[in-house]
Amino acid sequence: MTADPRVYDPYGEEDKCAKDGPGQAQQEGYLVQSLVRGLRVLVAVTNGARSFQEVAAATGLNKATARRLLLTLRDSGFLYEEGRKFFPTPAVVALAGQYLDHHVLVRNSYSELERLAHATGRSTNLAVLYGDQVLYLNRVAFGSRILEFDLHVGSTLPAHATSLGKAILAFLPEERMQQLYGNGTLERFTDNTVKSLTALQEELARIRCLGYSTSNREYRYSLVSFAAPIFNVKREVVGAINVSTDGHNSGGPELIVRELLLSSKRISYTLGYRDEN
Amino acid sequence: MTADPRVYDPYGEEDKCAKDGPGQAQQEGYLVQSLVRGLRVLVAVTNGARSFQEVAAATGLNKATARRLLLTLRDSGFLYEEGRKFFPTPAVVALAGQYLDHHVLVRNSYSELERLAHATGRSTNLAVLYGDQVLYLNRVAFGSRILEFDLHVGSTLPAHATSLGKAILAFLPEERMQQLYGNGTLERFTDNTVKSLTALQEELARIRCLGYSTSNREYRYSLVSFAAPIFNVKREVVGAINVSTDGHNSGGPELIVRELLLSSKRISYTLGYRDEN
Repeated sequence: MTADPRVYDPYGEEDKCAKDGPGQAQQEGYLVQSLVRGLRVLVAVTNGARSFQEVAAATGLNKATARRLLLTLRDSGFLYEEGRKFFPTPAVVALAGQYLDHHVLVRNSYSELERLAHATGRSTNLAVLYGDQVLYLNRVAFGSRILEFDLHVGSTLPAHATSLGKAILAFLPEERMQQLYGNGTLERFTDNTVKSLTALQEELARIRCLGYSTSNREYRYSLVSFAAPIFNVKREVVGAINVSTDGHNSGGPELIVRELLLSSKRISYTLGYRDEN
Repeated sequence: MTADPRVYDPYGEEDKCAKDGPGQAQQEGYLVQSLVRGLRVLVAVTNGARSFQEVAAATGLNKATARRLLLTLRDSGFLYEEGRKFFPTPAVVALAGQYLDHHVLVRNSYSELERLAHATGRSTNLAVLYGDQVLYLNRVAFGSRILEFDLHVGSTLPAHATSLGKAILAFLPEERMQQLYGNGTLERFTDNTVKSLTALQEELARIRCLGYSTSNREYRYSLVSFAAPIFNVKREVVGAINVSTDGHNSGGPELIVRELLLSSKRISYTLGYRDEN
């Protein structure tokens, strides 16, 4: 939260936001502190904080402030109270539903994701970059494979270890990559996770050349997936789609990649993107 | 928003909330007005309001207040600004994802919904009641049917016209039904939509007897679906699952109902529910 808008905004407004963070905001006098704090409380409860004490600890607010914000969020329908503990209501899911209803990328990709799932006999996903994570905006589950873990709308996974993430990272402006990974080490999840920023940069160059990415057991040993970027009318990357396999039956990559590229191109077209040639 | 928590809370806390609405809250002095207003602004933008003017009109706030709240939501990462217009970031989707990660009903039903989709060859959904709407919390799309409209996590549909809604309504406390429908007429969507509260009550009695509900082209002419309620350890209804068909190929209802009831019972069991006999 606070002044860290974790969303890659292809229109470049995020940098403006960053310059315009709370410091300046407070100087200019427009920042409504109780709203900032209330949002932090909502996030804390959604992440599992339950009591006045837990919320105060999670947010750094004093208990009296935490209490007023919790009760206000309750009266606004975002939380409910049970035995002096607070729980989120599905209001955030309804809000996400409204967001998805209005999101042109999501709306334009529903039927194409279904087509792709059927053409490949596998699950497909649509995601955007959210900080250094990929955030799932849609998922068409297909086939009888049941993953060892659950992916759903709203799931986030580390971008550098997933095909979806790398398909997006490969087409980001260089300064954005620097912001994300410039001074950080890359967390590793399997022996196959990319080992360094240099190795990641080399792989991203290869992805730019091929037009698609793979994750070969880089986040989970059971997961092999292929992803392709989605571009808008300004030729900026706005998200990615993937086809995931369980790694035990990853035959037919040629078919998967062909259908994947077809779908990603079709979705990009609906956003106004056109090939140069 | 405001003091209308639209969520059916099986633990009965909602009634307490209703009694404890803003009126009383303000009397007690805990209500943080700027948080209430900020949440209204966030909802307005998510619903499509874009400029200071549009947000002011949608929320009833004056433009100066709307501006401060919009800029604060921007600096908190929930909105971004582009050419003096405001758009929601995917932050609400990430928040919904956290909610779903922590939601025991959602977590306990993933693999069972997949099983049900495969057993019936059709799409399945998990939903809860949200005001007089059903709110989709999970969806396993299956089969080659493409609906004429898109259902996704966060979608809401009128409870009285859907199998999911009626499966929940049938097991609600009577006073809750009165709150929801006591003085209202039922909106109609097709010739098959239930015509009156009396007719709805009769159907709900039948659903209690059968243990499952149907929606036979009651929301869309193309949609036939079957749903069953999910109960918790206190034998309170907490949601429902369904199997939807496209109405053109609704053969095999016996198989669908059998598998549906098996899945709903298994999910209820994971919540601690036990049969009386």
